[in-house]
Amino acid sequence: MCGVIGIIADRDIAPELYYGMCALQHRGQDAAGMLTFNGGPKLKKGSGKVTDVFSADDIRRLHGNIGIAHTRYPTASSNNLNEDAHPFLVYASKRIGMVHNGNLTNYYEMREKVKKRGVFLDTENDVELMVKIFAYEYENSSDAFHAVKQLMQNVKGAYSVICGIEDVGLLAFRDPNGIRPLMLGKNEHGYCVASESIAFQQLGYERIRDLEPGEAVLIHVDGTLTAEIIDQREHRPCMFEWIYFARPDSMIDDRAVYNARLKLGFELAQQFKHEVDVVIPVPDTARTAAMKFAETLNVKHREGLIKNRYSLRTFIMPTQSSRETEVNIKLNPIISVIEGQRVAVVDDSIVRGTTSRRIVSLLRKAGAKEVHFLSTCPPITNPCFYGVDMPTKEELIASDKNVEEIRKFIDADSLTYLSLDGLKSALKKENPCMACLTGEYPVPVESKEMALVATSRTNARKC
Amino acid sequence: MCGVIGIIADRDIAPELYYGMCALQHRGQDAAGMLTFNGGPKLKKGSGKVTDVFSADDIRRLHGNIGIAHTRYPTASSNNLNEDAHPFLVYASKRIGMVHNGNLTNYYEMREKVKKRGVFLDTENDVELMVKIFAYEYENSSDAFHAVKQLMQNVKGAYSVICGIEDVGLLAFRDPNGIRPLMLGKNEHGYCVASESIAFQQLGYERIRDLEPGEAVLIHVDGTLTAEIIDQREHRPCMFEWIYFARPDSMIDDRAVYNARLKLGFELAQQFKHEVDVVIPVPDTARTAAMKFAETLNVKHREGLIKNRYSLRTFIMPTQSSRETEVNIKLNPIISVIEGQRVAVVDDSIVRGTTSRRIVSLLRKAGAKEVHFLSTCPPITNPCFYGVDMPTKEELIASDKNVEEIRKFIDADSLTYLSLDGLKSALKKENPCMACLTGEYPVPVESKEMALVATSRTNARKC
Amino acid sequence: MCGVIGIIADRDIAPELYYGMCALQHRGQDAAGMLTFNGGPKLKKGSGKVTDVFSADDIRRLHGNIGIAHTRYPTASSNNLNEDAHPFLVYASKRIGMVHNGNLTNYYEMREKVKKRGVFLDTENDVELMVKIFAYEYENSSDAFHAVKQLMQNVKGAYSVICGIEDVGLLAFRDPNGIRPLMLGKNEHGYCVASESIAFQQLGYERIRDLEPGEAVLIHVDGTLTAEIIDQREHRPCMFEWIYFARPDSMIDDRAVYNARLKLGFELAQQFKHEVDVVIPVPDTARTAAMKFAETLNVKHREGLIKNRYSLRTFIMPTQSSRETEVNIKLNPIISVIEGQRVAVVDDSIVRGTTSRRIVSLLRKAGAKEVHFLSTCPPITNPCFYGVDMPTKEELIASDKNVEEIRKFIDADSLTYLSLDGLKSALKKENPCMACLTGEYPVPVESKEMALVATSRTNARKC
Amino acid sequence: MCGVIGIIADRDIAPELYYGMCALQHRGQDAAGMLTFNGGPKLKKGSGKVTDVFSADDIRRLHGNIGIAHTRYPTASSNNLNEDAHPFLVYASKRIGMVHNGNLTNYYEMREKVKKRGVFLDTENDVELMVKIFAYEYENSSDAFHAVKQLMQNVKGAYSVICGIEDVGLLAFRDPNGIRPLMLGKNEHGYCVASESIAFQQLGYERIRDLEPGEAVLIHVDGTLTAEIIDQREHRPCMFEWIYFARPDSMIDDRAVYNARLKLGFELAQQFKHEVDVVIPVPDTARTAAMKFAETLNVKHREGLIKNRYSLRTFIMPTQSSRETEVNIKLNPIISVIEGQRVAVVDDSIVRGTTSRRIVSLLRKAGAKEVHFLSTCPPITNPCFYGVDMPTKEELIASDKNVEEIRKFIDADSLTYLSLDGLKSALKKENPCMACLTGEYPVPVESKEMALVATSRTNARKC
Repeated sequence: MCGVIGIIADRDIAPELYYGMCALQHRGQDAAGMLTFNGGPKLKKGSGKVTDVFSADDIRRLHGNIGIAHTRYPTASSNNLNEDAHPFLVYASKRIGMVHNGNLTNYYEMREKVKKRGVFLDTENDVELMVKIFAYEYENSSDAFHAVKQLMQNVKGAYSVICGIEDVGLLAFRDPNGIRPLMLGKNEHGYCVASESIAFQQLGYERIRDLEPGEAVLIHVDGTLTAEIIDQREHRPCMFEWIYFARPDSMIDDRAVYNARLKLGFELAQQFKHEVDVVIPVPDTARTAAMKFAETLNVKHREGLIKNRYSLRTFIMPTQSSRETEVNIKLNPIISVIEGQRVAVVDDSIVRGTTSRRIVSLLRKAGAKEVHFLSTCPPITNPCFYGVDMPTKEELIASDKNVEEIRKFIDADSLTYLSLDGLKSALKKENPCMACLTGEYPVPVESKEMALVATSRTNARKC
Repeated sequence: MCGVIGIIADRDIAPELYYGMCALQHRGQDAAGMLTFNGGPKLKKGSGKVTDVFSADDIRRLHGNIGIAHTRYPTASSNNLNEDAHPFLVYASKRIGMVHNGNLTNYYEMREKVKKRGVFLDTENDVELMVKIFAYEYENSSDAFHAVKQLMQNVKGAYSVICGIEDVGLLAFRDPNGIRPLMLGKNEHGYCVASESIAFQQLGYERIRDLEPGEAVLIHVDGTLTAEIIDQREHRPCMFEWIYFARPDSMIDDRAVYNARLKLGFELAQQFKHEVDVVIPVPDTARTAAMKFAETLNVKHREGLIKNRYSLRTFIMPTQSSRETEVNIKLNPIISVIEGQRVAVVDDSIVRGTTSRRIVSLLRKAGAKEVHFLSTCPPITNPCFYGVDMPTKEELIASDKNVEEIRKFIDADSLTYLSLDGLKSALKKENPCMACLTGEYPVPVESKEMALVATSRTNARKC
Repeated sequence: MCGVIGIIADRDIAPELYYGMCALQHRGQDAAGMLTFNGGPKLKKGSGKVTDVFSADDIRRLHGNIGIAHTRYPTASSNNLNEDAHPFLVYASKRIGMVHNGNLTNYYEMREKVKKRGVFLDTENDVELMVKIFAYEYENSSDAFHAVKQLMQNVKGAYSVICGIEDVGLLAFRDPNGIRPLMLGKNEHGYCVASESIAFQQLGYERIRDLEPGEAVLIHVDGTLTAEIIDQREHRPCMFEWIYFARPDSMIDDRAVYNARLKLGFELAQQFKHEVDVVIPVPDTARTAAMKFAETLNVKHREGLIKNRYSLRTFIMPTQSSRETEVNIKLNPIISVIEGQRVAVVDDSIVRGTTSRRIVSLLRKAGAKEVHFLSTCPPITNPCFYGVDMPTKEELIASDKNVEEIRKFIDADSLTYLSLDGLKSALKKENPCMACLTGEYPVPVESKEMALVATSRTNARKC
Repeated sequence: MCGVIGIIADRDIAPELYYGMCALQHRGQDAAGMLTFNGGPKLKKGSGKVTDVFSADDIRRLHGNIGIAHTRYPTASSNNLNEDAHPFLVYASKRIGMVHNGNLTNYYEMREKVKKRGVFLDTENDVELMVKIFAYEYENSSDAFHAVKQLMQNVKGAYSVICGIEDVGLLAFRDPNGIRPLMLGKNEHGYCVASESIAFQQLGYERIRDLEPGEAVLIHVDGTLTAEIIDQREHRPCMFEWIYFARPDSMIDDRAVYNARLKLGFELAQQFKHEVDVVIPVPDTARTAAMKFAETLNVKHREGLIKNRYSLRTFIMPTQSSRETEVNIKLNPIISVIEGQRVAVVDDSIVRGTTSRRIVSLLRKAGAKEVHFLSTCPPITNPCFYGVDMPTKEELIASDKNVEEIRKFIDADSLTYLSLDGLKSALKKENPCMACLTGEYPVPVESKEMALVATSRTNARKC
């Protein structure tokens, strides 16, 4: 998924970018990078969490008034054993850096196209392709909006982009369908553009508004702001932001994530037909929906599963195979909550079904009399080509099994998926991108991309 | 606080000890160590989390049938810049290793005493003193229970100890008041002794019972178990285990932590006299109590504060002083939950008052109409000498301010502390150790120890 | 300076490349990188020594039959806080990777030129520019020799380049003046191209010959070799390879380094007119010349200065300023060798003069009666634009001082520089590149490059 | 072997101790540690080189006026997976820290003895035993010389010890035979005690004298010095210091190491009966002897073997077995020096014979017509019990083979060992410890120690 942030101000912005990355860390812990301009560009990026990549020294050296930063979601290791962390920087007449959240669906076609005029890429990273197309157009026109327009006419997919342009300013734009989030904040020192409003709250910016689909916003070094709709189509924001990705305290496309999650629980409650004694969430994401679900049904809400927050390494050991299910160190049931109860367990989604099956088994071993499984996300039947890391279609349990078959597989007493209508109602969005639920893709996908996603779980290009 | 675990089995126990430490990681992330016996002893310890200290190679090398392990709570750095991680190992006729959770209250007196017969310590760590006294008595008697008895007659304080004795077995004992927890589990391969029952659940041991105050249990290498009450006084278990330290899914001294926390919320609800629109917990510990509090009062329960789970470094930066309160990156309010509401916020305790004041301020900025603060722990008026890391008496806000003064300091509309009776009722314990609330210390404290704790925030000896 | 190596064989070559980099480690310890092809490309690079950058796992993952590798000389940190380590890889129709030793003298001009057709660079590294020009020409012609020809017609400077081309083979070429070394080796499994013959010795390749100035050699995947002189001018090999850079056990351009160094000592002896009691080298490079110098003059040869081989950090400490000269931890005199003696000390060169002055002072303090200083390199009066890291002209002591003035500065009793004729005679080269000694540059240097080197000590582009 | 250093001065000595450890780094790169007193003690130790263990922050925190430090030689990993680095610190009435170079020969006997009065050790490290015996005697007498006397009456072996005693001063002593070196230096700020005089040269201390065998020296905090011969026997300094361990620029027991090494070469020349064309050393230690050897015989002296200074990891790889001898990356011949020549190669010693055989083979492959091998150390026939890390007796090639058999094994044309008389003459010592050459051990060795060294290559207790 990735998180992006850009700031332009009348003072040094490196510390703010650092804290901004921390606030967006939940969107990606695999790599982090920051580019600032203070006259010339300064770049630091690397693999790991923000606090692993940046030292206090780095933040001092990255002193500047314009800057962009990125936190990257783990992707399968590419051929390039080095991390392809963002930002990408090009040495055009004006140095230009770019970060991006999303995924292009015609990457290979465009790579061939630019290759024809002698532009060879160093990586297989979307953002390198985008920044080089953008720089080419900007070089010839010195017009950022013109360059965005040319870019939008060429690349397809989901992209929320922030650019720093040397001596010019900070540019941000969002694809014509506005699939990935991007929003604008302001304080007395300058502007901030970020993936989620949590960054504004934590850095002391007032949230102004979301960028519109296909809109570009340029904040000039003199502090003035110019905005232009470049190419607007139907707004199709990714429903997974509210279901799973975004922090509960963020506001995305004018819909508070927390309220959306409460409503997911309310809608689930409308669909649920069984009698239960206790409602428990699978921590942490589903907690909000479970809370409202229980409230609506007037059933006891309890924490029945405790998550171990400390990452741990898994060893292959002689004695282990026999205990595989015993050592369930990541998730542990509270016996006193579950024993002898009819339990409704609420999770955010069911992907392969294996985790859900393990949870049901855990609850049964802890003495649950009945286990009713609920998912705030409708059945996932198709892969995502817009930047969400998912298994191949074959691995998605809902791609070839119906609800009753899935219920049997996870061994639950009942299984309730939120309906598509319930989902739309919860998000208060008429037509969010639900391609992974319906197979209806708002932006066309080139065949090579399709083939690639069909056979490998992840690709290195995903932001 | 620290977590301790020991295992004796008919197979290699190093992997289990590793996972056991992971399960007890919440009791201490500062250092970790493991000692196993396979004939001779093998020891590895170091600073950091379990996964930082141990590699897969270490676990292989630590192959053995008897073993003890420890996770250590952060303490102020001592004069010894190296970490004084547990276990401590002595080369007596039988090699003996020891881990411990607690704090001695006559350490300096005992150190002088052993010095008189030429025993000089290498560290200022309680456990080194204890293992050397124990080894001396064991060397002369070859009787573990006798040695424990001699130890108990000499050292004062809170201690839950596990020992591995080469070729002999695994020994565990608890101080005469049973201040710190320690319990016994069993499966078909052997026995496990640990600070919390979560370790049993995750490693596949059945919880048998808590050790009694002043009891010693020895599991011999042949698998037989001998237990003896050495010196039993009134059971005074530390009330903070249920309020804050233990994992919610643990059972301690026959009282489930989760149920105790629910009851804390229930008892708080009996005391609360104000009308509010929404109840929010300060995550994570107070969540359970807040849930039951809201349920009891029939008020909406919401997550109004989101915690950033990613640790971050704090920089001193030129622009920062002006924004100090803005960058509140650890805790962030959900505006939509709070705005315009009368909010009851439930926390586990109030120590210095500064965090509570910051939380009230955060909520007011987020638009709360009223902020009512509740603490599941009664006013903390005195320091702990039994292993809980606390500020000096002067720094404890309740040491010289009454409730109304504290309310003013934190700027809340009301402030409700759980009563002592409410606490006892929630824990279902007649007489828990509440020395930090009442100043009534169940075990006497030598004057040097008192002076030390009075002037410095922490000392290196704490378990 | 940097070291380069490429191998193509009928078996996995990653381990050989690893050991080859170790053999060339003396040419650069700042960064290391390796690219292999096994069908698709695999790349790993990073800052530090070879053993810091590569794990055994990396070597396994880099499995392939064609590969190139690079060790990089420390350069001043560039704006890009990430290391610009080689190899550089481009995704043209055939993936192409490149490593390089040398420096371009028309980099900025060429960067502008490619920018005009929309090719923007990501770094300020010569090799990125070269691989992109090469890839452009290769893409359109599929003819490696044609592409090299186009490249040679455009870029100016010193460059010894090795390319891996996916499914095609291994390509190596040397600039028209052959300034930097590059040579060809062979064994029964394949071919190796490297900066120095030491790599052949250590990997079991037979040294065939040096590449000629302006020659390109292509070894195809089928094992056949094609060679072509693309653009040959006078051979001007850098004299510093024999004086300082190369390992003494290497053979470069048909002249054994060890023999050349012996001859440097012999030639120095012809010029030296003073009576001395003992000859000592400044370790390690000057040892060979000093040995022959002493032998020729029939004077005792001793080690009078011992080098501390362990790198150490320098602290800024309150007590230090007063002891600055005392703590001379890198070089230490052997009193018994020096005390009361007339000492001839032989070094490889005098750059700023400050180190030489410190050495003379050390020897005097150790009791030397007279100190005669000799340099196997003639006075360095001009900066290098072909890849040797040197101070600016102002900092070069010989740029504005004559020999007598330098002698006074370093406080020696006499100072003898090897003559230009002596140097040529030692190298057995008629016309080596001696631009830094004479100011006569064999390849023109663009004005921006000149300005840059004139004002800053190093630039990030140097191989 | 290990290096020790202690300083007491009227100013902060932590930086000096740091640089002192760097100067003694050649005596041990496995671990390093420093203890200082500034009132209370401050200790830092860890595994790795000095620069790995200590940060600038550590040096600041270790601020003090009395201090001791240690660099430790690699030993086989003990049962204790943590490093047993020195110094060891005990909390007696005065805190006492100790470092040591040497090895006890009645460790197990003494360990039993102290165990009898209840003193149990935490490690299997000599120095822990010594500091605890010392502390016991010092505690009861407050008389450092008395305590040293008691210690000397109890422990046997080789030991050069430095102690820091809180508020009292710096104490140093050497075993009654003076097997390991220890010397005293002075400047206007205070005193320094160290293993080698190189430390004095580099820190600006004047070398006063070596400690005598069995002498103790105490420098009080007021700057006064008291010395006393506690128990003096025949001086038996380890001959290996001059042959191999010490830095060439050190002076040990009044004999300059460099001069001794020259003399080793001279003596070898007296014994050598063959005609050769060139003399080459095995770098680095044998270089001095080879130089004098060649000079004496009036034969050409050349560097024929070049050492790769960069440490490298060795991989086990499929293709490697076939190339095992090819990849000789640590030592490489200079063909032009060796080809067609009758070569005399001088090494410092022959231990197992395998390295010598490999060197002969390298030289033959490089074209040597004849290879004559010389060793400046006579045949090593017995293990060392005084702190030199050696293989077991069975592994020592000279333990059961005569010179001719060894010559055949290493495949040399001739083999010349320096004679015992030649060795004594070179060292200018009448009766150095040559136990490893003669089996005559100056200090008795307890049987358990003997058994241990007989079966395992190293033990963790050494220095």
